[in-house]
Amino acid sequence: MIQTPYLLFLGDAPDQLSAKVAQGIKDWRPDNAVGQFRMAGCKADVGLKDLTLQEAKDAGAKTLVIGVANRGGVISQAWKEVLIEALGMGFDLASGLHNLLAEEGDLVAASQVSGQTLHDVRVPNVQYPIADGVKRTGKRVLAVGTDCSIGKMYTALALDEAMQRKGMKSTFRATGQTGILITGSGVPLDAVIADFMAGAVEYLTPDNDADHWDVIEGQGSLYHVSYSGVTLALIHGGQPDALIICHEPTRTHMRGLPDYNLPSIEQVRDTALTLARVANPACEVVGISVNTQHLSEDEAVAYLAKVEKEMGLPAVDPYRQGADRLADALAKL
Amino acid sequence: MIQTPYLLFLGDAPDQLSAKVAQGIKDWRPDNAVGQFRMAGCKADVGLKDLTLQEAKDAGAKTLVIGVANRGGVISQAWKEVLIEALGMGFDLASGLHNLLAEEGDLVAASQVSGQTLHDVRVPNVQYPIADGVKRTGKRVLAVGTDCSIGKMYTALALDEAMQRKGMKSTFRATGQTGILITGSGVPLDAVIADFMAGAVEYLTPDNDADHWDVIEGQGSLYHVSYSGVTLALIHGGQPDALIICHEPTRTHMRGLPDYNLPSIEQVRDTALTLARVANPACEVVGISVNTQHLSEDEAVAYLAKVEKEMGLPAVDPYRQGADRLADALAKL
Repeated sequence: MIQTPYLLFLGDAPDQLSAKVAQGIKDWRPDNAVGQFRMAGCKADVGLKDLTLQEAKDAGAKTLVIGVANRGGVISQAWKEVLIEALGMGFDLASGLHNLLAEEGDLVAASQVSGQTLHDVRVPNVQYPIADGVKRTGKRVLAVGTDCSIGKMYTALALDEAMQRKGMKSTFRATGQTGILITGSGVPLDAVIADFMAGAVEYLTPDNDADHWDVIEGQGSLYHVSYSGVTLALIHGGQPDALIICHEPTRTHMRGLPDYNLPSIEQVRDTALTLARVANPACEVVGISVNTQHLSEDEAVAYLAKVEKEMGLPAVDPYRQGADRLADALAKL
Repeated sequence: MIQTPYLLFLGDAPDQLSAKVAQGIKDWRPDNAVGQFRMAGCKADVGLKDLTLQEAKDAGAKTLVIGVANRGGVISQAWKEVLIEALGMGFDLASGLHNLLAEEGDLVAASQVSGQTLHDVRVPNVQYPIADGVKRTGKRVLAVGTDCSIGKMYTALALDEAMQRKGMKSTFRATGQTGILITGSGVPLDAVIADFMAGAVEYLTPDNDADHWDVIEGQGSLYHVSYSGVTLALIHGGQPDALIICHEPTRTHMRGLPDYNLPSIEQVRDTALTLARVANPACEVVGISVNTQHLSEDEAVAYLAKVEKEMGLPAVDPYRQGADRLADALAKL
């Protein structure tokens, strides 16, 4: 659990895109951030107030979150002065970079002097159990994709937001580093030891009120050969009551796999349901989330109408239209 | 790669069953062991010559393999004297126990003094790549099960043995600690980090001669919610040309999951083939391996005939009948 609120560290971000972790926090959990910290030459701006470390501290910030992906995912020497000063002032640090805070001797030393915590959210800090498959109370919805990096996290966050707005009980459950930094907790599933993957998902989505929904962030795809095992652990550990299928219609091949075509939405529906019903015989697909960023508005509307007709399920782009219709489909279940 | 031949350490094994790793080595790779080492009170005997450390050394043994599972999987103090003496005499040590050799300070110190290697085969010692899904040369067969612990390793070893006897080119590829100790190499798949599981299987089964078969040891089951992700990584990383379905007809529920029924052989066939064809569109199920240990000979024969008729595929118990018909099915593919 990462202490909130945050100060978002943008460092010397070379462009806006490199600050997408900070942007995600600002977009989805604005209450989690008191402001942003930018160094000289920073080319990103997530639209929060620029604060000094002291101003952020005075505003109640507990953790400095590295909200920027450096070239190569490393912790640059240029950042070190700020990070060490922040530790000395009583900030924890949190990072989702490949290069771990815990591998930087000077940061470790500074954190020990001040008694602060270094959170490397790519690395599990819990000894997860082996999954026991016991049916849990409460409801769960999982986003599954025809491919990786197709909008599953966005869909889950938008769905959680829509459910909250409608007064439904829901909790977004992060399974990747960006989601963990946005919400302050979760399981970095792709870094968990194989035997404990499904158990980590059970741990993440425990017993809850009968009318509470865990909105579980998906990972990978059953049809992506590099990561499909992670996806199946989510399906079996999450024992979802509902699946939402995420798709991007302009992909010409699976991400990173030029020889692999995308499956159809129907194929993902059939395979995911077959497997999901092992853990939860009542599981249903309740909607389709389409990432239409590469389509014009007219193309997007036409494509969504076609999918909706073919699948007999609500088909929306949560970015263009919000996720209200997906939330409604869950409410009806 | 563990240096062979071995001396098999049975320690103070409380019964024959506790020496099943040593028994597996003796049964499947007798040339890998020069003899067995038993301490006072040892209740196991795998039928090899009892040798002292010096006799084993003189016979060419390179590695002392802990072929016994102690209560709780620990390395007992009673063993330490022998293990340390063996290190001093130039043996490497190999173990598949939960309690790691590398966590025992006295063993680590002794190994460093003599320059010997401690092999903990539960722990990956390779930085596996992320799977790239590129089609590899050579052929691969994978055992998949209706449940865990159902005879997949036995089936793969028996199949490899039958193929060798018929003059086919084959290599058993171990994916669990017992298989790794038997053959001296492999991937401890259940201990690999999630993101690298499928890549580890690709690493284990590289390009080979067009008529060479990798016989890949299966793990878990697509229908076992605790471990299904590992199974799917095997299916997608292994890109098998052929699947053999393993089944045990007397199980009343999935192993360790009292609320879960076993799937039918047909269900496993359909689900496994759908997923396997993502990585290898030509994949076929070529046979059924039934563990009939809890049936009488008559019951077993009748059950196998029934399965064979229903599935339209050879159905054998490799323990009772050998795996020749499975090898023949592969040869025909």
